[in-house]
Amino acid sequence: MAFFISIEGPDGSGKTTAAKRLVKKLGEEGFDVFYTREPGGSYIAEQIRKVILDKKNTGMDDKTEVLLYAASRRQHLMDKILPAIKNNTTVICDRFIDSSLAYQGYARKIGIDEVLRINLFAIENFMPNFTIFFDITPEDALKRIKKNKREVDRLDAEELDFHNNVYQGYLHVISRFPERFKVIDASLDEDAVFENIYSIVKGLLNGSNQ
Amino acid sequence: MAFFISIEGPDGSGKTTAAKRLVKKLGEEGFDVFYTREPGGSYIAEQIRKVILDKKNTGMDDKTEVLLYAASRRQHLMDKILPAIKNNTTVICDRFIDSSLAYQGYARKIGIDEVLRINLFAIENFMPNFTIFFDITPEDALKRIKKNKREVDRLDAEELDFHNNVYQGYLHVISRFPERFKVIDASLDEDAVFENIYSIVKGLLNGSNQ
Repeated sequence: MAFFISIEGPDGSGKTTAAKRLVKKLGEEGFDVFYTREPGGSYIAEQIRKVILDKKNTGMDDKTEVLLYAASRRQHLMDKILPAIKNNTTVICDRFIDSSLAYQGYARKIGIDEVLRINLFAIENFMPNFTIFFDITPEDALKRIKKNKREVDRLDAEELDFHNNVYQGYLHVISRFPERFKVIDASLDEDAVFENIYSIVKGLLNGSNQ
Repeated sequence: MAFFISIEGPDGSGKTTAAKRLVKKLGEEGFDVFYTREPGGSYIAEQIRKVILDKKNTGMDDKTEVLLYAASRRQHLMDKILPAIKNNTTVICDRFIDSSLAYQGYARKIGIDEVLRINLFAIENFMPNFTIFFDITPEDALKRIKKNKREVDRLDAEELDFHNNVYQGYLHVISRFPERFKVIDASLDEDAVFENIYSIVKGLLNGSNQ
């Protein structure tokens, strides 16, 4: 059986690095696992993402942003995630619905329920089987972003205050779906974080083969 | 008092020609009236529209399309329509929420209620005060499109069958909101159609000034 696993966490939590390393290692061990992130190379979804992240689009309304993320998510789901799952491939998706709930629903104050409703239309209730949350305080995450001198996009440029709200938003979302979330300590060093996520996901995959 | 009036109808119903002529004449008579169409020159909304209408995007999922139209509508509302209304200018908007209900909700079979819900999120219940429907059979409308050799975009290129469904969709929407709709016979010649829409809108504006 194939799983749909999403990876969530604040910017700078190290989730992308860990997820890619995870997929590589599991692949070497013979598991059929696929890494993707929204918009994930889906031709149409990439165009939508470009509109969202264009630094010139500072006048974008928050609800417009919610609808665009949902549109991009829908197209990526149809083009990439569902075909993989049908092909019995486990999908590790770097950010999914919970990012919208935490960022737009909570931090942008549109409301977690409202944003959930729009997104359930988009994904037709196709929720991840499991979601791994990279738990790190916004202060530590921002320090890591600056250390790595990663290119700063429109969202990274927001204030620490906003990132604090995102973090609080994630905590609300986790309390809403406690059975779906697995929380790992992302303030540990890279190898320790990797070992944690590896043991969680390998446990899931082995469990499903037994 | 300023009104928000939307103009609806099948492709080729002559609504754009009539609406522009209407706004010109009312302007000459001293009324403060503004013509717009989605995405209406709003910088961000235009980018979204470009994604929707790109002929290469044949793989676009129907629900993605619903979300993109809603996003474009939201941004156009915030950037153009609401500022005009606040400025006491009557807005004549060429297509608005009912196009999504008829095209995506009914003809694409997503459901009028589902599409309405997404759009009410986008417009925050800011519905038009009045909607003028240009009533013409799909056969007559397509004949007019071909006669005028208008550039055919992705939607115009759909089959007559689809346009029949859109027309049926409009009839469902009108029966849902009978008090909002004013239906005019768009199969008449251009001058007769113009006189009809002119007398309706002028009556509204005069009524509001008395």
